[in-house]
Amino acid sequence: MMPVRSDATIEITAFAWVPPFARGFVRDLRVRWALEEICLPYRTRLIGGAGDTGLGPLRPENYYLEQPFGQVPVYKESGLCLFESGAIVLHIGEKDARLLPREDPGRARAIAWMMAALNSIEPQTMMLAMLGFAFPNQGWTEPARQALAPMIGTRLARLSEALGCKDWLEDGFTVGDLVMIDTLRAIPDAALVAAHANLAAYIERGMSRPAFQRAFAAQWADFIPDRQDA
Amino acid sequence: MMPVRSDATIEITAFAWVPPFARGFVRDLRVRWALEEICLPYRTRLIGGAGDTGLGPLRPENYYLEQPFGQVPVYKESGLCLFESGAIVLHIGEKDARLLPREDPGRARAIAWMMAALNSIEPQTMMLAMLGFAFPNQGWTEPARQALAPMIGTRLARLSEALGCKDWLEDGFTVGDLVMIDTLRAIPDAALVAAHANLAAYIERGMSRPAFQRAFAAQWADFIPDRQDA
Repeated sequence: MMPVRSDATIEITAFAWVPPFARGFVRDLRVRWALEEICLPYRTRLIGGAGDTGLGPLRPENYYLEQPFGQVPVYKESGLCLFESGAIVLHIGEKDARLLPREDPGRARAIAWMMAALNSIEPQTMMLAMLGFAFPNQGWTEPARQALAPMIGTRLARLSEALGCKDWLEDGFTVGDLVMIDTLRAIPDAALVAAHANLAAYIERGMSRPAFQRAFAAQWADFIPDRQDA
Repeated sequence: MMPVRSDATIEITAFAWVPPFARGFVRDLRVRWALEEICLPYRTRLIGGAGDTGLGPLRPENYYLEQPFGQVPVYKESGLCLFESGAIVLHIGEKDARLLPREDPGRARAIAWMMAALNSIEPQTMMLAMLGFAFPNQGWTEPARQALAPMIGTRLARLSEALGCKDWLEDGFTVGDLVMIDTLRAIPDAALVAAHANLAAYIERGMSRPAFQRAFAAQWADFIPDRQDA
């Protein structure tokens, strides 16, 4: 029972095409996942992605007025136009206690874990990924990777300690887990995660949720075929 | 009229010592600034910072239970123990419409700008700063800097367009401006900001606020003198 419905009130943007390595990792995934968790229907507006794909301009006219950096997703809902997947996931979370407890401290703690993913883990892990896909095989990227990997390793060791033997970072699944798991699963160096069995299991636990799987499938279903594939 | 008061209900942690380049930039600044904007009193608990300063252990016993990554600040307020400056600033913002509008779309938009600072601007600018202070003069850091700077330049150009001739990113000052300005002022390459007169003026406008100036002075006042200075 997918909540992707053409008559839905909520609209999100997504890219119609991205390079193969990015599929399944574009940021609308987090928003689709949050919406799937609470069965809230949404429709997608597909826009030009990266590279010359014959889709016309890379961004629709005036898209930067909706999303200042040209990213996806933009979230629209009866008069609200919102950007930044973190802000959108928080906005969705506030609709339903299954994503975000209504009262502090549970509410604030869930938000703290979401912020930790966005500002203490992802800045380093995103840079590590970028070394691979934006600057491959340049003389400086391997030493940069070797400098960055231990810093990420330290953060993951601390996160592993904080998770311990719990299923989720706090008492139950929250937006904090959603964003953290989507951050961790994008780490390109498998050994960094594999060093912590509880983190590997935590990622697997998140990705096994039916809502994640529906969101993942829905993002893939929206990509047009590669011209090389066609 | 500083709200630093030893009998305050709210407690934040801060470092007793950091290297000179980091003073004025440690993350408790954002939280102090938010508290100063709404005149909410707080007290500080100073903990060991970086390096061997004769202060004893780098972190108090069990500090990682309060702050999983060992960072500052930890925020305590009647039963709530919170980490991640972004989450703390949001929590404080929710107390007062001078920091965060009570209703959407204003509320959600302010949060979106805060998230943009934390996840679309700072991951790149923090990495640029880190190249300078953590990996100075290594063979790979200059080419890394040359790869990173244009990416930051593009983001700043978009941010400059979004700000336009407004004083603040939305209708009035919000937590979105607070976190964005604190992010922008830490960019180590002055030319990147100077390329956009409106951004330079925006940073200046934020730093001129009495609340920022009190927060900045209070962070400096908490550092113990350097042993070399003594």
